[in-house]
Amino acid sequence: MKTQKPFLSSLLAVAMCSAFAQNQATSAGAVADDFKPSQLNQPGQEFPQVNSQGYVRFHIQAPQAQSVVVTLGGRGGTPLTKGADGAWVGTTAAPMDEGFHYYHLSIDGGVFNDPGTLNFYGSTRWESGIEIPAHDEEFYSLKAVPHGQVQQILFPSKTNGVSGFKTAYVYTPPDYPKNGKKRYPVLYLQHGWGEDEHAWWNQGHANLIMDNLIADGKAEPFIVVMAYGQTNDAFRPGGARPANGQRPNFDEMIRRTGFESTLVDDLIPYVDANFRTLADQRHRAMAGLSMGGMETHQIALKHLDLFSGIGLFSGGVISPEDVQGAPDFKNKVKVVFCSCGSRENAAGINTNHEALDKAGIKNTAFVSPNTAHEFLTWRRSLHEFAPLLFR
Amino acid sequence: MKTQKPFLSSLLAVAMCSAFAQNQATSAGAVADDFKPSQLNQPGQEFPQVNSQGYVRFHIQAPQAQSVVVTLGGRGGTPLTKGADGAWVGTTAAPMDEGFHYYHLSIDGGVFNDPGTLNFYGSTRWESGIEIPAHDEEFYSLKAVPHGQVQQILFPSKTNGVSGFKTAYVYTPPDYPKNGKKRYPVLYLQHGWGEDEHAWWNQGHANLIMDNLIADGKAEPFIVVMAYGQTNDAFRPGGARPANGQRPNFDEMIRRTGFESTLVDDLIPYVDANFRTLADQRHRAMAGLSMGGMETHQIALKHLDLFSGIGLFSGGVISPEDVQGAPDFKNKVKVVFCSCGSRENAAGINTNHEALDKAGIKNTAFVSPNTAHEFLTWRRSLHEFAPLLFR
Repeated sequence: MKTQKPFLSSLLAVAMCSAFAQNQATSAGAVADDFKPSQLNQPGQEFPQVNSQGYVRFHIQAPQAQSVVVTLGGRGGTPLTKGADGAWVGTTAAPMDEGFHYYHLSIDGGVFNDPGTLNFYGSTRWESGIEIPAHDEEFYSLKAVPHGQVQQILFPSKTNGVSGFKTAYVYTPPDYPKNGKKRYPVLYLQHGWGEDEHAWWNQGHANLIMDNLIADGKAEPFIVVMAYGQTNDAFRPGGARPANGQRPNFDEMIRRTGFESTLVDDLIPYVDANFRTLADQRHRAMAGLSMGGMETHQIALKHLDLFSGIGLFSGGVISPEDVQGAPDFKNKVKVVFCSCGSRENAAGINTNHEALDKAGIKNTAFVSPNTAHEFLTWRRSLHEFAPLLFR
Repeated sequence: MKTQKPFLSSLLAVAMCSAFAQNQATSAGAVADDFKPSQLNQPGQEFPQVNSQGYVRFHIQAPQAQSVVVTLGGRGGTPLTKGADGAWVGTTAAPMDEGFHYYHLSIDGGVFNDPGTLNFYGSTRWESGIEIPAHDEEFYSLKAVPHGQVQQILFPSKTNGVSGFKTAYVYTPPDYPKNGKKRYPVLYLQHGWGEDEHAWWNQGHANLIMDNLIADGKAEPFIVVMAYGQTNDAFRPGGARPANGQRPNFDEMIRRTGFESTLVDDLIPYVDANFRTLADQRHRAMAGLSMGGMETHQIALKHLDLFSGIGLFSGGVISPEDVQGAPDFKNKVKVVFCSCGSRENAAGINTNHEALDKAGIKNTAFVSPNTAHEFLTWRRSLHEFAPLLFR
């Protein structure tokens, strides 16, 4: 369909290595003594803790262990030290980026989760998660505004041989139950490699981002559908990924997942039959983060009869060549949005933005300040993207 | 309100010790060599495995560990042995009861989850779970029938000082979205000690039980609301529970949680305002398992103006004394249901059933065959209880 941009492959290399957690160097020396339990701790758990600078402190009970290392905190992670009480303790060598990070423990050579905190599906497993409060966290916080609902649906899908059903989650806006006649536009929103249908409404806070935007009158109320993009099996060692170190052909691998058929033949018809949707191209958009952006690129460009808005978050760009290759693009696509974190290839996003402008394609580029290939980039991307849709 | 039945306190002692997993002795010696990955394994994970007899086999990577013990498999659990490849392996000494069991690993003296399987909230933490296929599992299986939806709601609640909102999950039956005018009865369904609002639709399969009953025409389509009963904090060491080994006053402790106000003042009005309910006593019921049964006992008996159906699953009984103490019980309550597993105090359930009958109170007693204080008892209880409601 098109040649991959060089910066796209570098983004994906980051994603494939699961290097979601990046450190930032600090000039000051002193670590502030104001550690508090992380927002994501399990009920009643005191650790892990985060301080006002973004340092993270761990406390793991395993008195007979030989070695406990946390994968957060830069190359080699954070090795913990056994204290007199048998607990292993340690603090990251530098503050973490604001936002959400996946991590796990290496205990005596095995991979386990931190029993203190909640788990989130990433890297094709349920991982520990930690949240570094961001200076702009209010846009994804639980506030005293009307709240929409997130629903689990089991939709019939031919491409699943086991039960014939697949799971997805659907956000409906706050006024959805109150007005039984109103119909709504729909955004299909994809997770990244290693994640699944849980990502956007848990670590992503897509529902709270929408609730807050709608309460402020900044976005049209619309439905958000979060499905599993079927990419994890294909990209596992032993799957369709080349084993010899060659660069994978991501487009081909995504094609082989069969998600295009799941989405177009099974999910969209189910959503249009079971929710009060505006079931036309004008009122349907697709977006995704990282590999979910690549899926969006592949599927939305092929089905411009279905989607009028396209968002790629740390997942490449809609290039002038893409536009040339897709008949009627200018007539059909109303919103083009490409984003990444400032610690990714922001220059690539901005260069492409200018090239699209020159080609007469109205589009938006967004660079998230001081974030990498991680969820704060994508929360902010959704927050910028949603207000553009369905106007 | 009433004197606790002796068998009720023994049930609760079981619950407080988290002894959810019981072994049953077997006569035969040979362990069948037909182990398969557990239904609850994380995607792509080979272990833990279950065989056709209900034995469970574990395989934990932790090459430098000194000791790995699984809490399943009777007193002392199942100690694993390190193999030549550095993995710790072992099989339960006896088959497990059919159904769902919580467990965790003790690795070098620390408490961790098995990275092979999914986690479920029980014992006030996210624990590993395993499923022993039951001979009657079809009633809670995902089958090719119309499926309802499970929705996360964020409802305003005065008793929460942090955000002012609490989370609950709401099951709506399959025809709910199709018929925008139809109104439905509601069952408020409570989890047990150590669990939360996730229990009934994950380890409990309440949604699939309802889908299957409705598809077979055995139950009226109704809404099921699954909220957090607020019992975990109160019953923690350091909470309202007596520290000196005295028997706790469960009624008093449940009162102190404030859940009665959450349910009556916040949740029921929210559900009636945001879902198409039949918002009267005739079309509202309450049930719960274990400590959720005790909550039901306390709250429903006090609010017979709100509930016409009462179900206690391994959570005590509605006794003749309860009936005497509640004015208008005979006029107002249409369904009384008490159940437990056959490995619990089934005699107590049956004796009370007869006493209620003698007192002229129509009621149902159910004893789940060959199960203890565990989720297969409660899945079966819901399956027996639901068809009685709202007829």
